[in-house]
Amino acid sequence: MTTDKVIFDTDPGVDDALALYYLLRHPQIDLLGVTTVFGNAPVALTTRNARFLLRAWGHDAPVHAGAAGPLTPDMPPEFWPTSIHGDNGLGDHPIDLEPQDDPDTAAQFLIDQIRAHPGEVRVLAVGRMTNLARAVQMAPDIAGLVRDVTLMGGAFRVPGNITPAAEANIWGDPLAADIVFGAPWRVVAVPLDLTTRTFMDSAMLARLAQAGGPGMRLVADLSQGYVRFYQAAGYDGMLVHDCTAAVWLTDPDLFTLTEGEVRVLSDGIALGLTLMNPADRQGPLGAWEGRPRQFATLDGQPDAILDRIAQVCTA
Amino acid sequence: MTTDKVIFDTDPGVDDALALYYLLRHPQIDLLGVTTVFGNAPVALTTRNARFLLRAWGHDAPVHAGAAGPLTPDMPPEFWPTSIHGDNGLGDHPIDLEPQDDPDTAAQFLIDQIRAHPGEVRVLAVGRMTNLARAVQMAPDIAGLVRDVTLMGGAFRVPGNITPAAEANIWGDPLAADIVFGAPWRVVAVPLDLTTRTFMDSAMLARLAQAGGPGMRLVADLSQGYVRFYQAAGYDGMLVHDCTAAVWLTDPDLFTLTEGEVRVLSDGIALGLTLMNPADRQGPLGAWEGRPRQFATLDGQPDAILDRIAQVCTA
Repeated sequence: MTTDKVIFDTDPGVDDALALYYLLRHPQIDLLGVTTVFGNAPVALTTRNARFLLRAWGHDAPVHAGAAGPLTPDMPPEFWPTSIHGDNGLGDHPIDLEPQDDPDTAAQFLIDQIRAHPGEVRVLAVGRMTNLARAVQMAPDIAGLVRDVTLMGGAFRVPGNITPAAEANIWGDPLAADIVFGAPWRVVAVPLDLTTRTFMDSAMLARLAQAGGPGMRLVADLSQGYVRFYQAAGYDGMLVHDCTAAVWLTDPDLFTLTEGEVRVLSDGIALGLTLMNPADRQGPLGAWEGRPRQFATLDGQPDAILDRIAQVCTA
Repeated sequence: MTTDKVIFDTDPGVDDALALYYLLRHPQIDLLGVTTVFGNAPVALTTRNARFLLRAWGHDAPVHAGAAGPLTPDMPPEFWPTSIHGDNGLGDHPIDLEPQDDPDTAAQFLIDQIRAHPGEVRVLAVGRMTNLARAVQMAPDIAGLVRDVTLMGGAFRVPGNITPAAEANIWGDPLAADIVFGAPWRVVAVPLDLTTRTFMDSAMLARLAQAGGPGMRLVADLSQGYVRFYQAAGYDGMLVHDCTAAVWLTDPDLFTLTEGEVRVLSDGIALGLTLMNPADRQGPLGAWEGRPRQFATLDGQPDAILDRIAQVCTA
């Protein structure tokens, strides 16, 4: 089996943890490294959490800390979604590792790895797009050298989650997302249109914890607060946003792509809204003129995606 | 049969003409008057065109000229969609009536009629929302006195027509539309989500002209340029946007309503975008907080709507 060289850009983050576990367990994935970003928690915590998870799962991929805040000017004040990811970013699961004072090396690591493996590196970004946007601004050549960019984010034909307009990852740095969608590389967005349908119920999570050994039990343990957040909203389980994007890398047949130019609103009441001009639309292009055609998985097979996660995480 | 007192706010406009004919032919509709607005052509022409159509169809409803331009500040320069509606706004069909120099009395007429018939008046607005917005700003009491407001406009879960984000009526004065959706009256939007599916093909239009007598033949004659616009895009026929909104007044059973707070973007690259916070969405409300719940016909029965138009316009 040939393997895919993947850099995982992440803000763990509870559903980030499941996605990381999936990547580590999957025989097709060769994880080159992890870059971290602010989002579900401050970057010092998401970086510490990435190291904690890799150590727990016996993996020595390098961890590079990234952006502590957005590129977008005039953003509303940051708040951390502690009701979803806990005060420590991992559902308040005990973590015996202190945050360090890391330099910001994520964008340079992305550049170096993409240049070192031309045409091979796949970037999976499941937090704010800040590191990716900075990397392609610092080194525009990487757009022609990366194999592809997959991101969890956006809400194209469904309402947002952080506002009626916006999905949280994009909302947290909309200008960065607009830069990423506008660069001449292949971007596939895995948006709320699909990830609000990949719902892992509590019974399934318990079965995976039972069958998957200590690694998967850690995922289940740190997910309990996340499940309680959904239970308070009337759903017994959790949405596996980030891991759905990870499954796109390994099982694209389970997804349906829609193609078009994408813009992201970086100011105003719909800050963070993702808007696609579908390839089959006729009519004036406005501010979509000249943008590259990108992709979004607006549809797919949620049950099969969940089955795939179960299979990989208990193998 | 009880009749509905309707004021038709319009910018004829080819599909406006079909909608007006439908209203005049329908036994349930008592047309109190026509208010005109810029949009498909300058207001002097749309006003002249409204008078021309009423005269041709032997109806003496009063015509009140309205807004010549948008309330929205810093709008891009106006352009007239002559490739769709012709240089004269009615597909360049010969019109033996000169434009007059009318005062702007539309908003006051709306106010006076709504106050004169409390709880009874239904406003059908199929152009820019400028007259309606000005009326409710001048006389906020009318929001509690009108029966309901129906508008043709918006694109909620589908791309726009004038840009990838925006439908033309809303795009032409987005601040006015935001005021209309935000006032405490009942608004039902009939958006592109449905009206891009109410497509009258050329054969049907020809059948109606044959069966409907001189009144319907005038509609068909002045629609020929509009049909040629669609033919150039690969479709042999025409979308009957405005008349679909007229059918909502008479046959609501053919439509499916979605409820939620609506905002309209009045600046930026997505100028004119309509965004609903659906009533079943959970999560932070952002700038949708405190807005009244309104309605949009996101779905419906296009074939039955077209049948209804055929039935009324040939009876």
